[in-house]
Amino acid sequence: MADGTSLNAQSFADAARGVIAMAHFAGARHWVPATSGNFSARIDGRVAAVTATGADKARLTEAEIIEAEISGPKHPRASAEAPLHLMRYAADPSVGAIAHIHSLPATVLSRRHEAAGLLRLEGWELLKAFSGITTHETVLEIPIVPNDQDTDRLGALVEERLRKSAPVFGYLIAGHGLYVWGASAKDTIRHMEAFDFLLTAQLHEETAR
Amino acid sequence: MADGTSLNAQSFADAARGVIAMAHFAGARHWVPATSGNFSARIDGRVAAVTATGADKARLTEAEIIEAEISGPKHPRASAEAPLHLMRYAADPSVGAIAHIHSLPATVLSRRHEAAGLLRLEGWELLKAFSGITTHETVLEIPIVPNDQDTDRLGALVEERLRKSAPVFGYLIAGHGLYVWGASAKDTIRHMEAFDFLLTAQLHEETAR
Amino acid sequence: MADGTSLNAQSFADAARGVIAMAHFAGARHWVPATSGNFSARIDGRVAAVTATGADKARLTEAEIIEAEISGPKHPRASAEAPLHLMRYAADPSVGAIAHIHSLPATVLSRRHEAAGLLRLEGWELLKAFSGITTHETVLEIPIVPNDQDTDRLGALVEERLRKSAPVFGYLIAGHGLYVWGASAKDTIRHMEAFDFLLTAQLHEETAR
Amino acid sequence: MADGTSLNAQSFADAARGVIAMAHFAGARHWVPATSGNFSARIDGRVAAVTATGADKARLTEAEIIEAEISGPKHPRASAEAPLHLMRYAADPSVGAIAHIHSLPATVLSRRHEAAGLLRLEGWELLKAFSGITTHETVLEIPIVPNDQDTDRLGALVEERLRKSAPVFGYLIAGHGLYVWGASAKDTIRHMEAFDFLLTAQLHEETAR
Repeated sequence: MADGTSLNAQSFADAARGVIAMAHFAGARHWVPATSGNFSARIDGRVAAVTATGADKARLTEAEIIEAEISGPKHPRASAEAPLHLMRYAADPSVGAIAHIHSLPATVLSRRHEAAGLLRLEGWELLKAFSGITTHETVLEIPIVPNDQDTDRLGALVEERLRKSAPVFGYLIAGHGLYVWGASAKDTIRHMEAFDFLLTAQLHEETAR
Repeated sequence: MADGTSLNAQSFADAARGVIAMAHFAGARHWVPATSGNFSARIDGRVAAVTATGADKARLTEAEIIEAEISGPKHPRASAEAPLHLMRYAADPSVGAIAHIHSLPATVLSRRHEAAGLLRLEGWELLKAFSGITTHETVLEIPIVPNDQDTDRLGALVEERLRKSAPVFGYLIAGHGLYVWGASAKDTIRHMEAFDFLLTAQLHEETAR
Repeated sequence: MADGTSLNAQSFADAARGVIAMAHFAGARHWVPATSGNFSARIDGRVAAVTATGADKARLTEAEIIEAEISGPKHPRASAEAPLHLMRYAADPSVGAIAHIHSLPATVLSRRHEAAGLLRLEGWELLKAFSGITTHETVLEIPIVPNDQDTDRLGALVEERLRKSAPVFGYLIAGHGLYVWGASAKDTIRHMEAFDFLLTAQLHEETAR
Repeated sequence: MADGTSLNAQSFADAARGVIAMAHFAGARHWVPATSGNFSARIDGRVAAVTATGADKARLTEAEIIEAEISGPKHPRASAEAPLHLMRYAADPSVGAIAHIHSLPATVLSRRHEAAGLLRLEGWELLKAFSGITTHETVLEIPIVPNDQDTDRLGALVEERLRKSAPVFGYLIAGHGLYVWGASAKDTIRHMEAFDFLLTAQLHEETAR
């Protein structure tokens, strides 16, 4: 499926609709403050629909979504964080949509656990919201990478970490926020909501200790 | 009233309306994140209207509600947690509606107090929001049971605990969430809101100590 | 003005509009969970418009507001907490509207400081939101009384405390919530919002210590 | 540009639209409780549109906005805090719009760090939301000044502190709230949202320690 075809190939318009759905959902929850955050959906094995630089994601329109080549040259309107999306699509054909959000508990916990390099989520029923997890008796280790303004270098580090990790649907960038994905925009919305709930619960549990 | 008749018998359509009211109320409060949660209302002593598996409760429609036999064979579209609803209806004829939600304080406190097996709520005026409680000078002991993916076994444990407990309108499953009920969907909505307020207050009180 | 006339006399319809404005404002903020809370506005020195027992304040309509005598016999649809409203109107002719809400920080702090009998708010700029306060260099001592289901007795205790206190626009009932008033419904809405902000700030400040 | 002309000169109507946009944004987030807060936008080097005293900012209309001289005599309907706006425009020609809000974390942190005279924000990705900041490897020192009801004196102290500080887009008044600005109303809205997020994250990080 890295050859340009995909079981889940869709038109730019359909992909853009998924991008807008994710962006508006995140905007309504205040997860993309101050025009931060970015969103994408795979069109096929070769290209993806990605939010352009500078857009207010809470009010995103189709005109602010570009069609970017997954492994080609950088699109002139691509945001600085586009490589973090595109490298994910290149590395894992099961990834159909990606969201990057600045939810508060993600940002706080990403700094607190940066030295450990991961955040362990364990025993919560809502872990079952992630595709393929069928029991709360699960340990999910969310990778945490240090922040880096060079997103090509950061993306390479992320992919190296993910290759070595057990399967997971997201990772944290320290002091920065959360990347989360799924097979479709709908799955990614569910995963965003699951991460926000789990990380908020985790934050409360740690604070009380 | 376990013979199929009930003082409060209602049509499937009326029961479904109550289920939708509870689901939308909980959805607006973010108590059913990531398509979690489920809701039901008794039709009579024999059947109940229950949310089907996989529905997004915040946008629940009547088509996603099934009519399930309280003591009969499992409905093909029943969610895995349906037994936790149906066993309650079988055990207590005064139960008219049941909500299962993942409110944040319920989830955090259910883990913190799991070893004690119960959470004690005492002295709060809002305890009077529960049917039959007329003074804040009340001690409410909310049972906490360990989580279990086998919901037949979990339901049996819950009913055993409830038979030994003082009357209560809900219980916690550790790391999972809250079950809450009442004589009607309206009462159950009031009880949901009361539990959320009381558990949030309790969480703040404990955290400050 | 205790003789039945008042500088601010208004019709029942106008008073009811003020009651509804306060109730809906509080409902939108989740300050009246589970049908708790009650609201009133003075009509003149003799009668006041008061929410009836059992109403859902967040959706309050005029039909759920009664005209109650300030010093007369109990209205058949009066809520149990009506005396706490009516005694205030009898004691202080400057009181034009009263709100009783269960805001979370009010409830938590009322228990934490119950033994001291008061909560001290000091140095916050927003103290100036209260009518007559012109500088943050103010110490406001909010009385806290123990909760009591006998509201005639509770009201008498409250009025005794208020006679001995420096002027204040509200008091706390331990584990229960906040009473707040002003010259008009509009002032009382401003005072509600000020109390909620100040008590939330106070709760954060105390928790961090 | 202090001579009455400005690269960004605009009509009163356009400036008022910016003021209203800032006020409504802040009102929807509960950052201007109890009619607190105030907002302004520069018209040119000589005058600015400023909220009048007493307005409810969450429902602000153009009639509640005055045209105030930046260095002239006090406008009869100016709020007591107008000097804190006007002195900023006089001192820095790049300031196009100013917001004063009472966000909760700003108020709590302003008191906690008052003795230090500043709050240090460091390493958060969202620091990049401020105009001109291009990396999270930034230390932003937000000045904190003691509160003072004499706003001419307070404004002079603020400007003295800002002259000695590294460039920054806001400052805190202890126990009071946040002043924030930008080249335009749109930039100031982004800066408000960035400050609220960063200060909330900071509050959580400090509380957990």
